[in-house]
Amino acid sequence: MKRNLLLTPGPSKVPVELCEVLGKPIIHHRTPQFQQVLKEVTEGLKTIMGTSSDVYLLASSGTGAMEAAVANIASPGDKVITVEYGKFGERWASLAKAYKLNAVTLKIEWGRTITPDEVKAVLAQHSDAKAIFLTQCETSTSATPDLQAIAAVTRSTQTALVVDAVSALGTEPIKMDEWGVDVVCSGSHKGLMLPPGVGIVAVSAKAIAMMEASSNVRFYFDLRKSRKALADIDTPFTPAIGIVIALNESVKMLLAAGLEKKQEYYLKMAKAVWAAAEAIGLKVYAQPAFRSRGLTAILVPEALNPKKLVKIMRDTHGITMAGGQGDLDGKIIRIAHMGAVDEYDLLTGLSCIEKVLKEAGHKFELGASLAAAQKVLNS
Amino acid sequence: MKRNLLLTPGPSKVPVELCEVLGKPIIHHRTPQFQQVLKEVTEGLKTIMGTSSDVYLLASSGTGAMEAAVANIASPGDKVITVEYGKFGERWASLAKAYKLNAVTLKIEWGRTITPDEVKAVLAQHSDAKAIFLTQCETSTSATPDLQAIAAVTRSTQTALVVDAVSALGTEPIKMDEWGVDVVCSGSHKGLMLPPGVGIVAVSAKAIAMMEASSNVRFYFDLRKSRKALADIDTPFTPAIGIVIALNESVKMLLAAGLEKKQEYYLKMAKAVWAAAEAIGLKVYAQPAFRSRGLTAILVPEALNPKKLVKIMRDTHGITMAGGQGDLDGKIIRIAHMGAVDEYDLLTGLSCIEKVLKEAGHKFELGASLAAAQKVLNS
Repeated sequence: MKRNLLLTPGPSKVPVELCEVLGKPIIHHRTPQFQQVLKEVTEGLKTIMGTSSDVYLLASSGTGAMEAAVANIASPGDKVITVEYGKFGERWASLAKAYKLNAVTLKIEWGRTITPDEVKAVLAQHSDAKAIFLTQCETSTSATPDLQAIAAVTRSTQTALVVDAVSALGTEPIKMDEWGVDVVCSGSHKGLMLPPGVGIVAVSAKAIAMMEASSNVRFYFDLRKSRKALADIDTPFTPAIGIVIALNESVKMLLAAGLEKKQEYYLKMAKAVWAAAEAIGLKVYAQPAFRSRGLTAILVPEALNPKKLVKIMRDTHGITMAGGQGDLDGKIIRIAHMGAVDEYDLLTGLSCIEKVLKEAGHKFELGASLAAAQKVLNS
Repeated sequence: MKRNLLLTPGPSKVPVELCEVLGKPIIHHRTPQFQQVLKEVTEGLKTIMGTSSDVYLLASSGTGAMEAAVANIASPGDKVITVEYGKFGERWASLAKAYKLNAVTLKIEWGRTITPDEVKAVLAQHSDAKAIFLTQCETSTSATPDLQAIAAVTRSTQTALVVDAVSALGTEPIKMDEWGVDVVCSGSHKGLMLPPGVGIVAVSAKAIAMMEASSNVRFYFDLRKSRKALADIDTPFTPAIGIVIALNESVKMLLAAGLEKKQEYYLKMAKAVWAAAEAIGLKVYAQPAFRSRGLTAILVPEALNPKKLVKIMRDTHGITMAGGQGDLDGKIIRIAHMGAVDEYDLLTGLSCIEKVLKEAGHKFELGASLAAAQKVLNS
C-alpha cells in the first residue's frame, strides 16, 4: 500500500483527472473530432505562452523540441551562442555541434544563470550570431534567469532568442510576444502535468522567417512541414493522439485555475521549501536571485549520502524525488513543485525528507521543516 | 450512445485492458522499476521481431523510426534504393532526399509490391547500393511483399535490407535473424494495439556497423546513443513512459496468445473480408498474391462516394474506417484486422458497410457479406 507520488521535476505528478483521460479509448487523428482538439489545445498553449504566432506539437520528448529549434533556426556554419549553467544548457551545445553550427559556448557557474548584462556583453562581441540558446528553468540546478530582461536586450538585435522551457512552461511566467522571445521549446511532462511524449515548439514571425531560410538537414523535425500542416489544423505525421487529447484537458485545467494565480502558488510553494530546508539546517543550491518556481535543489551533506536517501524515499516510502546530475551527483536532492503538485504533496515530501534525514543521523528538530513550510504556505 | 470502434489501420483499436494500463499513474524513468519494464519490453519485442540483436525505443511516431533508419544506415551521397508501391514507400524516397543520399527510386504499380526477382534485378544494376528500403505492409494499398524471399536475395549482398514494418509488426510474420533483415522500423499504434507515440527500430549486426560508420547529421535519432543507453538498460532521452509501460503489457498479451496463432487469425480475418467484399459485388484492391493480413482496401464505385460513406460510418455510427490516400482518394475503403480487432469487430464493421452501401443505392443482398465472412471465420 505504498504511495506512488512523483515529486520529480519531470515526469511530474499526473493528476487523477488526467489519468482518466489517458485511460479512455482514443480517436483517429484524421477526423474533424481530433481537429477540434488540436485547435483548442493550440489556442490554449498560445495563451500559456503569450503568443499569437504558431505553436507546433511533435510526437517526441522535450529534446525533440529542442532539436527542432536548432535544426530550423540556423544553417551549417552559422554562428550561434549557447549558454550553459547546468546539464540542459549543455544539450544546446551538443545539438549545435551535431548540426555543424559555429557555436560560441558561454559557461556560467552552476547555481546561477546568465544576467541581462552578460547577454548584452556576449551579443556585443558576437553581433553576427543568428541565435542565442538558453534555459528558462535549468532543471539540474533549479536556477532560472530573468527572461523578460534578457528578451529586452535581444529583441532589438538580429539575434533570435531561443528558450528551453521544457520544465518552465506553465510554471514560470513567459510572454513571448510582449517580451520578444523567438522560440520556446517545451514538453508535456513537467508543468503540463502529463506523461512524456509530446514536444512543443512555439515560433515568432522572426523565427518563422529563419526556419524558412534554413538549409539544415531535417525531416521529422522540419517545422516548415508543421507550419503547413497547422494551417490545415493537422500535423505532418501521426501525433501522440492520447497525450494530445489529455494535453487539451490539462491546458484547460491550468487556464481555468488562472495561470497567474497558479504561478503565484508555485512561487509560494518554492518559498515554503526554501524556508523548510533552512529550518532543518540545509541550504538551497540555487542563488537567491535565480531560484525557480518549479523545483528546488537542496544541498545535502555528502556524508548523509543524498543518493541513498532518494532511493530509500522511493523504494521504501513510494515518494520519488530526484538526486543530482553531473557535478551535482551525490550532493543534492531535487523536489518539484510544478504542475499538479500541491501544498499537501509538498508537506508529504518534506516529512519524508525529515524521516530519512533523521535515520541517516542528521541533527535537526523533527517537524521543523513542516512548520516552516506551513507558515509560508498560509501567509 | 454511439460506438467508438477504430477499424482504421493505425491508430488501431486499443483493448480495454491496455486503456486501463494507460490510465494508471506513471513512474519515473530513471528508476530500477522502469528499467525492469524496459528490459522486459525489449526482450518481448525481440521475440516478436525474431532477433537477438538490439531493439531501440524512441519517443516518436513511426516516421521517426523510419528517419532513424535512414539517418543511421547511410551517409550523404551514398547510393540507396527506395521502392515505392504506395504512399509509405514514397516516404522512404522523401527521407533519402532530405538526408542528401543518392537515391535510386523504383516505382512499382500500386496494388502489388516488389517481387524477389525485381529485387535481384535492381541489385544487379546497383550492387553498390548501401541499402534497399521497402515497406512490409503498404498501408495505403494493403499490399505486402514476400519478405522472406526478398531477404534471401539481399542477405548475400552488401546491401542492407531496411523494412518499414510500422503497420506490419505483430501482424505479418517477420524473422529478422533467420531471414536476414537488417533494419525493422515500427510503432506502437498498429499491430501493437496502443496509441501512437513510441517508435521502434531493430538493427542487425550489419546495420550496427553501418550506423557506427554513418556521417549523417543526427542527434535525437542517433541510434549510437540508443545503443549506448540500451547497454545500461536506459534510453538516451526521456521515453514516452506511459506508452512504454503499456507496450510491455501489449507485447505480453500478444506472446501469451501465441504469435503464430494470432497471425493465422489475422489471415483468417483478412480472407473473411475478401470473401465478404466479393459477396456484395465489391473488389479487393490488392492483387491476390500480395494481400496483407492486417488490413484490406476495398474498391468502392466512385458513384457511391466512398469518402462520404466513411464519414457517415464514423459520424453517424461511431465506426471509423479509412478512405483512400493519394491516387486512391475517393476510391477505396480500408478496414483493419490487426492488433486487438477480432471477428466480432469485423462483423460489426461489415454490417455497417452494408448499411451505408444500401443507403447509397448499391445493389446487393443484405447480410451477404456477413454470411460470407462468417463462413470463412468458422471454417
